[in-house]
Amino acid sequence: MLSKNKIKLIQSLNRKKSRDETGLFLIEGIKMVEEALRSGCPIQTLVCTSTFLEQYPEAATKAGELIETDTATIQKASLQQNPQDALAILAQPVNPRPELNLPNELFLALDFIQDPGNLGTILRIADWFGIKTVICSENTVDAYNPKVVQASMGAIFRTKTWYTSLEDYLNEIDRAQIPVYGTFLEGENIYQESLTRNGIIVMGNEGNGISEPISKLVNRRLLIPTFSSDKNKPESLNVAIATAICCSEFRRR
Amino acid sequence: MLSKNKIKLIQSLNRKKSRDETGLFLIEGIKMVEEALRSGCPIQTLVCTSTFLEQYPEAATKAGELIETDTATIQKASLQQNPQDALAILAQPVNPRPELNLPNELFLALDFIQDPGNLGTILRIADWFGIKTVICSENTVDAYNPKVVQASMGAIFRTKTWYTSLEDYLNEIDRAQIPVYGTFLEGENIYQESLTRNGIIVMGNEGNGISEPISKLVNRRLLIPTFSSDKNKPESLNVAIATAICCSEFRRR
Repeated sequence: MLSKNKIKLIQSLNRKKSRDETGLFLIEGIKMVEEALRSGCPIQTLVCTSTFLEQYPEAATKAGELIETDTATIQKASLQQNPQDALAILAQPVNPRPELNLPNELFLALDFIQDPGNLGTILRIADWFGIKTVICSENTVDAYNPKVVQASMGAIFRTKTWYTSLEDYLNEIDRAQIPVYGTFLEGENIYQESLTRNGIIVMGNEGNGISEPISKLVNRRLLIPTFSSDKNKPESLNVAIATAICCSEFRRR
Repeated sequence: MLSKNKIKLIQSLNRKKSRDETGLFLIEGIKMVEEALRSGCPIQTLVCTSTFLEQYPEAATKAGELIETDTATIQKASLQQNPQDALAILAQPVNPRPELNLPNELFLALDFIQDPGNLGTILRIADWFGIKTVICSENTVDAYNPKVVQASMGAIFRTKTWYTSLEDYLNEIDRAQIPVYGTFLEGENIYQESLTRNGIIVMGNEGNGISEPISKLVNRRLLIPTFSSDKNKPESLNVAIATAICCSEFRRR
């Protein structure tokens, strides 16, 4: 049975303050719980229907606490609009400061990404392109925000996030050895530039791009050129789209 | 003054039925109205504040009907959560069947894209990569859905959409002359394939990919490979992200 207190705990995980205090986060839906099971991420509490357990019998042994109930009860706790067969509470992994001196390692660094959907999509892109760690500025939206988690489509279990003062961090590392890339309107055409196998790709805020202090620390300025022949050229790409194009260019070579 | 009937009309444009009956669509916010003014798209009704008119004095002569009011009144009609300084009603352009026999022309074709945010983002990508027409299956979400329009960030004014039975259309064209590309799990690595300057790139549904009847009409099967070394590899990319990577690969060469 799903107690009132448990429902309260689940719903509280929509708030950053509660996530920070408890160190927990929430995942919802069969697909996400399946991804958590596949990843081997320890599940603290699993709330699910008998239908779900028939489909994933291993879930019973893998969850610290198992609460079997019906979709109507799950709905009471759920943050989703559609009824779910499963939701789970997990502990947020504590990721170490990323090791930067690996020869072929690419990193993403996010400078004030605000939209949860964008961050979730960026994690999914990082996962696809084998980027293991995404370094986030302290003002970037929390990666364990339920909207980020859901938009990541499971990438949250495979891609590490690490929050820090991006300015301090980029100042501390050896930028001569580890190139710091960023896209700017006056950068070099990404399709024609030689790109290194290692480095950090900085992506900026949705409205304002890379902030002034961070842009000073970028030593390789790139441009994704538009191919529009319209007299009113488009001004920008969505940040997740720009991330995908950058990652694709670095990895294909 | 903004009449009750006008408010009713504006709000009705959230429904496809009303948009089809009236042939109109709604745009909201300074940025979108500015894009409409820049594009030269005729504005039937402009509802805006005096602040907006001071910033864009040309708007007064470019709108068929001008209603000057305050943000609180605009809010009554608005579909947006945040107060807006401007919204406008425009006539949906009637786009002709796309001319396919141009040597360097790329087209996107969408097979049952359901999510308005995805379609808006895809229009923005098309705009960026100089793809002038997006051919949409009849079951693709309506391009004049307000969520699509807003997500397109103005691309709706520059990128034409054309709805048709995609199966009939692809059957009618000369696919020997106009290659039809699509991404599949068993396709050829997009980074290693030679790609033509002209052609149609088909993008499939968010959950199910390209449908069975359409996949039979694709004569160039591509794959965007993952670079993940995780034992649990990611299964897919978001459709807008995949569209961006395809467009980038076709255009960079």
